[in-house]
Amino acid sequence: MPNEESAITDAVIEFILGTEADSIPEDVKAISRRCFVDGAGLMVAGSTDHSGRIVQAYIKEFGGEPEARIFGTDMTVPAQTAAFANGVAAHAMDYDDTQLSSYPDRIYGLLTHPTTPVLAASMAMAEALGSTGEELLTAFMIGFEVECKVAECIKPDHYIKGFHTTGTIGAIGAAAAAAKLMDLDEGQLRFCMGIACSESAGLRANFGTMTKPFHAGRAAENGVVAARLAGGGYTSDPGVFDGEWGFMQIMGGGCDPDYLVGKLGNPWSAVDPGVSIKPYPSGSLSHPSMDAMRDLILEHNIEADQVKKVRLGTTTRILQPLRYDEPENELEAKFSMKYSLGILLLNGGRGGIAQYRDDVVAQPEVKEVLEKIEPYVDEGVEAMGYDLIRSKLIIEMEDGTVHEKFTDTSRGSPKRPMDREELYEKFTECCGLVYDSDQIARAEALLYKVDTLESIYTLIEMLGPRQDGEDQAGEDKDGEDQDA
Amino acid sequence: MPNEESAITDAVIEFILGTEADSIPEDVKAISRRCFVDGAGLMVAGSTDHSGRIVQAYIKEFGGEPEARIFGTDMTVPAQTAAFANGVAAHAMDYDDTQLSSYPDRIYGLLTHPTTPVLAASMAMAEALGSTGEELLTAFMIGFEVECKVAECIKPDHYIKGFHTTGTIGAIGAAAAAAKLMDLDEGQLRFCMGIACSESAGLRANFGTMTKPFHAGRAAENGVVAARLAGGGYTSDPGVFDGEWGFMQIMGGGCDPDYLVGKLGNPWSAVDPGVSIKPYPSGSLSHPSMDAMRDLILEHNIEADQVKKVRLGTTTRILQPLRYDEPENELEAKFSMKYSLGILLLNGGRGGIAQYRDDVVAQPEVKEVLEKIEPYVDEGVEAMGYDLIRSKLIIEMEDGTVHEKFTDTSRGSPKRPMDREELYEKFTECCGLVYDSDQIARAEALLYKVDTLESIYTLIEMLGPRQDGEDQAGEDKDGEDQDA
Repeated sequence: MPNEESAITDAVIEFILGTEADSIPEDVKAISRRCFVDGAGLMVAGSTDHSGRIVQAYIKEFGGEPEARIFGTDMTVPAQTAAFANGVAAHAMDYDDTQLSSYPDRIYGLLTHPTTPVLAASMAMAEALGSTGEELLTAFMIGFEVECKVAECIKPDHYIKGFHTTGTIGAIGAAAAAAKLMDLDEGQLRFCMGIACSESAGLRANFGTMTKPFHAGRAAENGVVAARLAGGGYTSDPGVFDGEWGFMQIMGGGCDPDYLVGKLGNPWSAVDPGVSIKPYPSGSLSHPSMDAMRDLILEHNIEADQVKKVRLGTTTRILQPLRYDEPENELEAKFSMKYSLGILLLNGGRGGIAQYRDDVVAQPEVKEVLEKIEPYVDEGVEAMGYDLIRSKLIIEMEDGTVHEKFTDTSRGSPKRPMDREELYEKFTECCGLVYDSDQIARAEALLYKVDTLESIYTLIEMLGPRQDGEDQAGEDKDGEDQDA
Repeated sequence: MPNEESAITDAVIEFILGTEADSIPEDVKAISRRCFVDGAGLMVAGSTDHSGRIVQAYIKEFGGEPEARIFGTDMTVPAQTAAFANGVAAHAMDYDDTQLSSYPDRIYGLLTHPTTPVLAASMAMAEALGSTGEELLTAFMIGFEVECKVAECIKPDHYIKGFHTTGTIGAIGAAAAAAKLMDLDEGQLRFCMGIACSESAGLRANFGTMTKPFHAGRAAENGVVAARLAGGGYTSDPGVFDGEWGFMQIMGGGCDPDYLVGKLGNPWSAVDPGVSIKPYPSGSLSHPSMDAMRDLILEHNIEADQVKKVRLGTTTRILQPLRYDEPENELEAKFSMKYSLGILLLNGGRGGIAQYRDDVVAQPEVKEVLEKIEPYVDEGVEAMGYDLIRSKLIIEMEDGTVHEKFTDTSRGSPKRPMDREELYEKFTECCGLVYDSDQIARAEALLYKVDTLESIYTLIEMLGPRQDGEDQAGEDKDGEDQDA
């Protein structure tokens, strides 16, 4: 029964219980399918990353029931373990999507990476339970929405002072999705949320290290654990978000209830204000500047040795987080404005996974080009505020020509969404680290129609290890037979 | 290299790396062995508790490599999973030991339940690794000390505002113990701490529910996970406790560095100010009042029907946490001053596991006796401050006699430590839920000499399932053979 003391918890529970596939608008589903494709590709890509590999080696030590796939590999492990591994993988390259916010006091409106924890939890749980594709996509959309609205509701101090929302609030979104798939009743669902809030963790002190993707993976795992324990009868506080001792107060110093109560699915965050799919595997705050750079490079066929100087006028709140002026490894490079602009200049506007690697960061020509890049705080841009990620790019050529571009948005944002072809290009970049083009095409086709699948098993198989090895072996054998 | 910006982290790392069995004073070892025995008994007892059973059923779903025992059962599971289950069990009855503090601003100096997370992590890890008993006890003492000093160092707001230290800081103690057993090098140890701090979680909102013991179990699991990932090369912030973004600041709003730097093992917290072993399975703040009640009952052979009124004069800071005046279940009864005094009156001074059960709480004669108990705030006692847990007990008999006792301590506290016989009585109460007296005696004997065991395997077996079933079966078979 809703009451003043548990209004926020009540709203979350009511939304999860009351939302079904046929009550979700088609535009929400369309955007969610895109996040789904993007997130799945990143799980495959991240399985090859250093942090992904360490996690797989760790999991090999203890194994367990084969319930759910670690994507990109032949490992099938307990659902919460698969959720952990896939969550780490999807966030490993800092290439996963970003929640936007409706409210200007949420700085730049960048609140969480909403897809990763929820997708990792819901795919693992759906595989373990044998759910249909429609149940899977529905649970994903519900978890995504809960995560976004909780992230908007809690006071911004939660993030500003040092918690990593993708870890802390990701656990809550993941729990919502896992609980929906398990069809928990109201009482169990409340306990599930109580457990999830007591698992919620992650310090931004660990940014720039492998523990950043750990947060996303642990959030996914935490969601599955909370749902399973609550489903087994485990109890917790039934109004955990509310009151003096509740999650909102303890983790954020309070909240704005009106940002959540009455707002869940009204509108759906995925549609309004929307979600940004990343065009580059680096901090979101670099993307408008990078796209401006890419545009000028492509428009004028600019090559690095023709450039004398690149100046980027922007704000303190963009330059401070992107603070590595002399990055020494891949993880620092992802949070370096100088690197992110320089690498485009060296590669004809390309800045993908292949450009953010330790060995590339160490190349002398990369270090050289960085000396030409000069980010600075532009008072005019600063004065425009922090609601949009604004910057002014000025490229001075050796021949004296000057190219200039002002920007406040990037590809992948709701204002400039990627079309299916652009998404396919990113998906191919990601999955190409593991699969051949055939398998990539088949996986993408299945992911786009996930909610029509009676069984998700074929999809899960397609996201397992590289399949052409077997096919190839079969063909070779046939060949030999013919030769013989 | 120690520097101003990582002084706290440096001190923790240096202590873990630099402490070995032969550098730990004998009095620390003696007290630690007692905590070890007490904690192990509680793990066996808690395996029969509702929360323990749900956790076992959950774990059965996914299994994994048989690395470490869930005590009191025949389940052998991955080390982090055993740490989780045993940690939940040891805290399930609110009967595990309590850290004291050296500083008066830490209210009543009750900071964490130090043994549970560290013992659960170190026993599971030691079994998985095949450690010696000395390595196990040493790791336990180091983890215990790290947990206590971190709990003293962080600002008391950490707990006061709503984090559950046994969950949050327990993870750090557990990680220290697990890392010591794995013999991590300095770099790995720093990363282990960075991961542990990003796992640190637990809201006091969940007190009075099964999620309270969940915090202790998850802390133990978190320690093992952090140590294993760091041992595999996983990275994190190498100075995680310090600075604007560090654990102390984000989770507690700061710290008193002097309470930790130079203080680790100097003195050892287990000895000075010491640790309290609980004489009753209820909130520590009730224990001095309960012991006063027990003393008067035993001294005057008081029975419930001879009593007209019991008045307990004490402070707001004792009565507020023990707030359930009409408890409806076991978990509320543990935090009810009225219940904890009343149950002693009905049972000749006994208030053990058998008295804190849902079915006992529901008995009409229990509800009746509670009407005779009247706790109140005594201005005189309140004025004496909160450094000791003070109260004044007044029993008015039906015949007009009045018995009175003032108290500021209880059995099990450093001022009034339990002797081995009293501890054995508690151990028997706990293990008697699973084992026969033979097995209890053998387990206790092994636990007291844990650090002399070349292999801990016999001890682990003794703490497995009840063994007389097998013996009995063997005897029966022999008997049949003779009959045949």
